[in-house]
Amino acid sequence: MSLEKFFNPHSVAVLGVSRNPEKIGSVIFKNIIDSGYKGKVFAVNPNEEFVMGYKAYSSVLAIKDKIDLAVISVPSELVIKVVEECGKKKIKNVIMVTAGFKEVGDIKLEERLLKTIQKNKIKLIGPNCLGVINNYNGLDTLFIPIYRLKRPDKGNISFVTQSGAFGSTVLDLISAENYRLSKFISYGNGLNVDESDVLNYLSKDKETGIVVMYVEGVKDGKKFFKALMDIKKPVLILKGGKFEKSSKSTLSHTGSLAGINEVYEGIFKQTNAVITESMQDIFDFLKLFEKNIKIKGGRIQIITNGGGHGVISSDAVIENGFKLAELSRTSKAILKKELPSIATVSNPLDVVGDADDSRYELAIETCLKDRGNDVLLVNILYQTPKLTKNLINIINKLNNKSSKPIVVVSTGANFTEELRRGLEDKDIPCFQFPGNAVRAMKAVHDYYKND
Amino acid sequence: MSLEKFFNPHSVAVLGVSRNPEKIGSVIFKNIIDSGYKGKVFAVNPNEEFVMGYKAYSSVLAIKDKIDLAVISVPSELVIKVVEECGKKKIKNVIMVTAGFKEVGDIKLEERLLKTIQKNKIKLIGPNCLGVINNYNGLDTLFIPIYRLKRPDKGNISFVTQSGAFGSTVLDLISAENYRLSKFISYGNGLNVDESDVLNYLSKDKETGIVVMYVEGVKDGKKFFKALMDIKKPVLILKGGKFEKSSKSTLSHTGSLAGINEVYEGIFKQTNAVITESMQDIFDFLKLFEKNIKIKGGRIQIITNGGGHGVISSDAVIENGFKLAELSRTSKAILKKELPSIATVSNPLDVVGDADDSRYELAIETCLKDRGNDVLLVNILYQTPKLTKNLINIINKLNNKSSKPIVVVSTGANFTEELRRGLEDKDIPCFQFPGNAVRAMKAVHDYYKND
Repeated sequence: MSLEKFFNPHSVAVLGVSRNPEKIGSVIFKNIIDSGYKGKVFAVNPNEEFVMGYKAYSSVLAIKDKIDLAVISVPSELVIKVVEECGKKKIKNVIMVTAGFKEVGDIKLEERLLKTIQKNKIKLIGPNCLGVINNYNGLDTLFIPIYRLKRPDKGNISFVTQSGAFGSTVLDLISAENYRLSKFISYGNGLNVDESDVLNYLSKDKETGIVVMYVEGVKDGKKFFKALMDIKKPVLILKGGKFEKSSKSTLSHTGSLAGINEVYEGIFKQTNAVITESMQDIFDFLKLFEKNIKIKGGRIQIITNGGGHGVISSDAVIENGFKLAELSRTSKAILKKELPSIATVSNPLDVVGDADDSRYELAIETCLKDRGNDVLLVNILYQTPKLTKNLINIINKLNNKSSKPIVVVSTGANFTEELRRGLEDKDIPCFQFPGNAVRAMKAVHDYYKND
Repeated sequence: MSLEKFFNPHSVAVLGVSRNPEKIGSVIFKNIIDSGYKGKVFAVNPNEEFVMGYKAYSSVLAIKDKIDLAVISVPSELVIKVVEECGKKKIKNVIMVTAGFKEVGDIKLEERLLKTIQKNKIKLIGPNCLGVINNYNGLDTLFIPIYRLKRPDKGNISFVTQSGAFGSTVLDLISAENYRLSKFISYGNGLNVDESDVLNYLSKDKETGIVVMYVEGVKDGKKFFKALMDIKKPVLILKGGKFEKSSKSTLSHTGSLAGINEVYEGIFKQTNAVITESMQDIFDFLKLFEKNIKIKGGRIQIITNGGGHGVISSDAVIENGFKLAELSRTSKAILKKELPSIATVSNPLDVVGDADDSRYELAIETCLKDRGNDVLLVNILYQTPKLTKNLINIINKLNNKSSKPIVVVSTGANFTEELRRGLEDKDIPCFQFPGNAVRAMKAVHDYYKND
């Protein structure tokens, strides 16, 4: 099943655009126009001549152009009628935002809708969904105004979600934290386009490097397993409805019964899935996966200018099953010679609180050359007096010269944010807390260790 | 041992103030002056007549006034001499910022220092520490400039840390996230003022409501256990150096061998300690403890306008050993009558994506009156079109009328921040992610359940 026309249609009709700019259909229409989508966009409203300053068509049948994609946000009692019209118009791709089907107990309406789309050979995303964003052509069917939810920059993360609300908040945070998006798909009840179809599409999509997925229940377990096996990209999965009791709320939410947690975990472990336990995990793990950081060995060398952060980092290293690397004799000799006597030449390597940029340069350079470790975990307390902004350039230069990954942790607020943003802009991952960094390193390590 | 004069001295001498404003002694001197401390402050420098625009005294002996507190940041080779002078001057309280003692292997110097202070009956915080902040009188001996590390507003959180660096980053984040501080104490090597002495002082301090503590090793286990038993306030503890391997770095850091993790955990569980596993935990738990939120029962009612967030919240509730509450028949009748048919009247109670302020008001009010639950977990996706800023006032009004705690989760970036800050300003806790909220609720529940 090709989903190409959902993401790259030449023309779009929005059904349910109203004169009231706050209505869902109007917000969708405005978002598509405002996001720079270059195809033709048509507004459909049987009761108006003009909406939002555009001509309104009484139905899709009144439009002369060929329509690749219809986005439907009419009330649920009208959906069968307008889908029939889409069928007559030979529209093969429909996104249905309208809710009020199986998720609220109206199974009959959902069944009638299914029959209607089957009869007309329509592929339908939804109902009860937010639809899609293709960040590479400005197609944006979300009914959330951009002032309330900033859209992210272009990038390689694609996001697939059963829950629209979940998707919208993640999108909001992805954008605020400067992650970069490729595609967004909220598929809702997944009537005849499900999570596996979407995965298969993203598997071939060149603009997608990583998939993030929020899933409650799965329509077809075998198909999903195969899709996860076939996709050669990391798929970060957050499973909602882990327990029987909370599965009840899943049922009423998108109308599919959540499977048993253990079964899912077992399946995920055999595939390219990366299990996340929380929303926090998603954002932490993405920091490394997005930048294509590969950690292939488990020996970690910590560098720090704060003893306490070194200790907490060591704890996290051991708790996550990594090893504290040993410095080579050569490294020790260099470091002992060049660093002040108050420094601790070990693991953690503590360059102490009065460290300046050049002391970090020496420490990082020496540890990058050392063959006894696989990755550097560099704590920088940027509040200390002697560090400057130039540290960003120093680390960037060293990072570019070496294939060994550098993961930075810099704990602090506004002033520290300067360092964090500066490093992230140069694709050097920088975390707020050591624990989150090491947990993400573990996820990346487990994904790439057999590469 | 009274530590009163460390926090409320009438006069302070800073030893090691230089003409160079970037030197540690100079930064400390400037911070005390700039923070609005009302007592007398003297600069000591044997080589200068004036420093930073103030008269410099050649030693503490040259000062005529009585000195309550000396802050020492001279090089380690000079510390014995200046402490002897403090003794002659009858200064009984000394903070020593200077490093270079046991933590770098110079046990002899540390022993000489100990003998010197014992002989002169001096109480010493440090060496190798940041010293103290009393946020109620502007005493601030930190050598980190305020532009690099903003100081928090006045409040009821006191923070005790072995590691200065750790303390400074937490302080930075406490300030940025609008938590409010009472006292800050970085005690470093803890020569003759240790963690237990500080706890005993804070136990009686009326301006302290909660203590946050970062501890690697403990000098005297029995004394610490007694201090933790005696203090009738929550003490959030993060233990650094949990494992033997990472304990090695603890040794070189503040010179005390970290104890075995299990022993600590066992002790903590018998006292008023609240164990935190990470820096993230500290900030999450503080949100509830600072606002004196007490959760005495385990039945949680979830309200949400996003199905996915409801499901994730349910998962977190069950994972943390809480129960999903049942709505009473009366509540169900009211909600079914007043809410649109698309809403889910259950737990989670889903008021769905087009909910406006009044729908939340109805849901929260009904659940607050329902005796079948102990606490409300309210998810608000503020990106949805119909919610306004007035929701803050509505929740505040309902919160003030009820003794049942309300914990809000609102996931999102800039626009959502408006809601989060608004609620937090009214002392209603508001989290970014459901998982963090429920974990914090668990910590508070376990602390207060036997109250």
